[in-house]
Amino acid sequence: MARTLTLSFSCPDTSGIVAGVSAFVAGHKGWIIEASQHTETELGRFFMRVEIRAESLDFPAAEFAQRFAPLAAKFGMDWKVSDSAQPRRVVLLCSKQEHCLYDLLARHVAQDFPFVIPFVISNHENHRKVVEAHGIPFHYVPVTPENKHAAYRQMEHLFREAQADLIVLARYMQVLDEQMCRDFAGRIINIHHSFLPSFAGAKLIGATCHFVTPELDEGPIVEQDVIRIDHSDTPEDMAHLGKDIEKVVLARGLRAVVEDRVLLAGNKTVIFR
Amino acid sequence: MARTLTLSFSCPDTSGIVAGVSAFVAGHKGWIIEASQHTETELGRFFMRVEIRAESLDFPAAEFAQRFAPLAAKFGMDWKVSDSAQPRRVVLLCSKQEHCLYDLLARHVAQDFPFVIPFVISNHENHRKVVEAHGIPFHYVPVTPENKHAAYRQMEHLFREAQADLIVLARYMQVLDEQMCRDFAGRIINIHHSFLPSFAGAKLIGATCHFVTPELDEGPIVEQDVIRIDHSDTPEDMAHLGKDIEKVVLARGLRAVVEDRVLLAGNKTVIFR
Amino acid sequence: MARTLTLSFSCPDTSGIVAGVSAFVAGHKGWIIEASQHTETELGRFFMRVEIRAESLDFPAAEFAQRFAPLAAKFGMDWKVSDSAQPRRVVLLCSKQEHCLYDLLARHVAQDFPFVIPFVISNHENHRKVVEAHGIPFHYVPVTPENKHAAYRQMEHLFREAQADLIVLARYMQVLDEQMCRDFAGRIINIHHSFLPSFAGAKLIGATCHFVTPELDEGPIVEQDVIRIDHSDTPEDMAHLGKDIEKVVLARGLRAVVEDRVLLAGNKTVIFR
Amino acid sequence: MARTLTLSFSCPDTSGIVAGVSAFVAGHKGWIIEASQHTETELGRFFMRVEIRAESLDFPAAEFAQRFAPLAAKFGMDWKVSDSAQPRRVVLLCSKQEHCLYDLLARHVAQDFPFVIPFVISNHENHRKVVEAHGIPFHYVPVTPENKHAAYRQMEHLFREAQADLIVLARYMQVLDEQMCRDFAGRIINIHHSFLPSFAGAKLIGATCHFVTPELDEGPIVEQDVIRIDHSDTPEDMAHLGKDIEKVVLARGLRAVVEDRVLLAGNKTVIFR
Repeated sequence: MARTLTLSFSCPDTSGIVAGVSAFVAGHKGWIIEASQHTETELGRFFMRVEIRAESLDFPAAEFAQRFAPLAAKFGMDWKVSDSAQPRRVVLLCSKQEHCLYDLLARHVAQDFPFVIPFVISNHENHRKVVEAHGIPFHYVPVTPENKHAAYRQMEHLFREAQADLIVLARYMQVLDEQMCRDFAGRIINIHHSFLPSFAGAKLIGATCHFVTPELDEGPIVEQDVIRIDHSDTPEDMAHLGKDIEKVVLARGLRAVVEDRVLLAGNKTVIFR
Repeated sequence: MARTLTLSFSCPDTSGIVAGVSAFVAGHKGWIIEASQHTETELGRFFMRVEIRAESLDFPAAEFAQRFAPLAAKFGMDWKVSDSAQPRRVVLLCSKQEHCLYDLLARHVAQDFPFVIPFVISNHENHRKVVEAHGIPFHYVPVTPENKHAAYRQMEHLFREAQADLIVLARYMQVLDEQMCRDFAGRIINIHHSFLPSFAGAKLIGATCHFVTPELDEGPIVEQDVIRIDHSDTPEDMAHLGKDIEKVVLARGLRAVVEDRVLLAGNKTVIFR
Repeated sequence: MARTLTLSFSCPDTSGIVAGVSAFVAGHKGWIIEASQHTETELGRFFMRVEIRAESLDFPAAEFAQRFAPLAAKFGMDWKVSDSAQPRRVVLLCSKQEHCLYDLLARHVAQDFPFVIPFVISNHENHRKVVEAHGIPFHYVPVTPENKHAAYRQMEHLFREAQADLIVLARYMQVLDEQMCRDFAGRIINIHHSFLPSFAGAKLIGATCHFVTPELDEGPIVEQDVIRIDHSDTPEDMAHLGKDIEKVVLARGLRAVVEDRVLLAGNKTVIFR
Repeated sequence: MARTLTLSFSCPDTSGIVAGVSAFVAGHKGWIIEASQHTETELGRFFMRVEIRAESLDFPAAEFAQRFAPLAAKFGMDWKVSDSAQPRRVVLLCSKQEHCLYDLLARHVAQDFPFVIPFVISNHENHRKVVEAHGIPFHYVPVTPENKHAAYRQMEHLFREAQADLIVLARYMQVLDEQMCRDFAGRIINIHHSFLPSFAGAKLIGATCHFVTPELDEGPIVEQDVIRIDHSDTPEDMAHLGKDIEKVVLARGLRAVVEDRVLLAGNKTVIFR
């Protein structure tokens, strides 16, 4: 896999943005592998993602940010550039259930998409052995009503020490506190089972992957999917089926975030395939 | 297609029900084509559907109800038997939109499942020509706040005169009044677009086919499905995509009802494939 | 709906294409609503689609082709530009089955996407009344082994006279002759039921919408989908289920073609959402 | 979870089978939790699966087979009865890829459905640590053109010693030899990626779970599913997407087999939901 730089940004919509960006890239001999753009008309905001082959540029990859900054400033961009040579650092938080954890471990081993797991945190000990069999450190951080504040501060300390880019709640059954949601806004994703827990007699159950905000289960949605159930499915069956859809939706959502395909647009997301 | 009788029932769960029913059928040389059963444990209720080749029985099909009645009484069944020689009479109600109407007309022409359309009612005139091109009578019944009561009584009169078995709201954009919901309880089905009109940023939109009860959009669900949308879909795109899923879900739901595959279990449904 | 121009092209991949196109558009004050691009690495070919608000340009829409031609020539583009003010002219060919025909008629009435049906051709008379109820001319053109050549020349004459842009085989059960496939290459789409008619015991059946080439059922694929079946589905059930998937796949495929979202890349297609 | 007995059988179709079976169960106070039946008309064969609460019977569960045998003989049944108290023993065979292995390990830990993994066999060493972290023995059995015969005999010896009920090829990249396919006919399942490796430009890729027969990839199908791809997916993307569908399809297939929901009908399967 060749080294790539991924530029992603949003800015107020105006004419000349694409022309400006593509002239900048072409002016430096950059080879664009993939480019996507979208205008959110109601917001009057433009979104773009450009993937560039790093070695095609006529300057070192490390200088991209500095060289692009003036153009970004001109259009008032909220922007970032990522380098495939520095894979994203993704901390996993889990509880007793294993389906999302194992699924992400398998993807990590296979490097289905480029990410590193600096460590796993759990409020239970049961997955220590499997996590450590991968050479990944495992931190047991129990959370009780009494130690809640201290526990989350300890986790935040661990995240910062490990320079974590993203935090994934892989069926982590504790509610993060407001401070953590704020401190890591836009960097925590969760998987939420089922749209409609109270919809009696529904024929579909689903899962939603979303960014975590202080408002529980209401952050911007990254990915969703459903599976079909019927009257013969017991609550246990539904729990098992729900796990299948949860892990797939979480993994798809994480992949999109890691690949910088997800841009925030108010309480929604723009997701470039 | 050979003539079939379809027996469907629910009754309090106890042992010996299947043995009783199958002994009755076998005792009369009946050839069972398809049989399905389910116990709703929480309700303590048993559900069954049996499809029998009519000519295999050692008595005329018309006598089935009378001969089966004692067994039905013994188990306290809520039951019915349908004869494929008497296709279900399904009245369609529509408004300006055509997607569900055309879809059901096509299925009627093809006899995808056995049903008759005695007439179509609409509060708009725009579909008269197409409906009449099929040789199906078209009744224009405008509904206004003033004439509402009279209009619904007129419709009820038409339903009864035509011996309608089922009423399908094929994107009929008027709310039926309570009296009609009561008078035709369990015999009116509706298609309801989207689960979650207010779910900002959802990645899926759906449709639900349900029985109509006086509580709007809350009757027992017959069928549901979703399709994927993304940030590039405008409200117009979603409306078009929504139509695709609505017509398919309504048709599947109607088919299941017409084939006696749908049994009510409180506010839920048991649906035998 | 505002008037739009849609530019779509492919050309040999090189640097500066996007910069060139976006500079051209921006230089004429053009407001880009949607833009998509793709590089087919193996072919060394670049594909792009740009939708521009017509009234934003500083020249009349009708002049676009002439003004863009030099840039197109510079990059060796295979290109076209479409004007939403001139909806695509789509001729439907059908036989006895109605599911695809009715589905497209409903979309035409609703203008789900902008297209005109100049007429319908069938080798059967059964749909005349319904088609004519829409004010659409219906031509009965029977095809027999003896009159085949003459029949297809008659159809070609009708297509040309009506200035048809596209020909849709909406379950038309005759094989077009080689001459017609050649004369209208890239302008005829077909719906092909099931991937795998001979795959005993498959759990899925599908439908494929593809361009027609002289090699039957092997033209570039535009759209595909499947639905689940099980052991209880009889061949009749599968035929009915197959119809549901066929009409949806054909309509999605037609929409993509009408909206210039489908570009040919050898024997494959690039399809911009 | 209450202890259950699952009776499954097929036999020549005739009248009185259901009556006979249900009279037997009811005669012994058996409480049927779930029952399904199907007639394969072309084969003239009847299929049934009945799940009975073990403690409801008026005789010990262990006596079921002996007591049922006369009825089975009367109808010429090909039958078996399984006891939930004796979970199925499922050996996993894998190679380097981890997605199916990890998925099944997670289901084993969670006991999503009742099965035991007596050991894992692989022709590579890379998964030893993770498997052993679960307390499951790991056997490294390399297979080369030279040692092939000996290697498979060694595996067969291991299977027999461990009293394996089922063998799952969880992306095991070696072709079993004919002898093993014969010796364990109907007890080996495989996951096969994609329907149509050679279908240029397909918009869907899929996976098939099937029984292994000496004819490679042609055994009776247990489960299938597909996912959507598009022109922007590289071969690497497709490989990753393929893994997601493979593991889900394999797990669903295994679950159905373990729960005795899969009955063979010639080269097809009858699968009771």
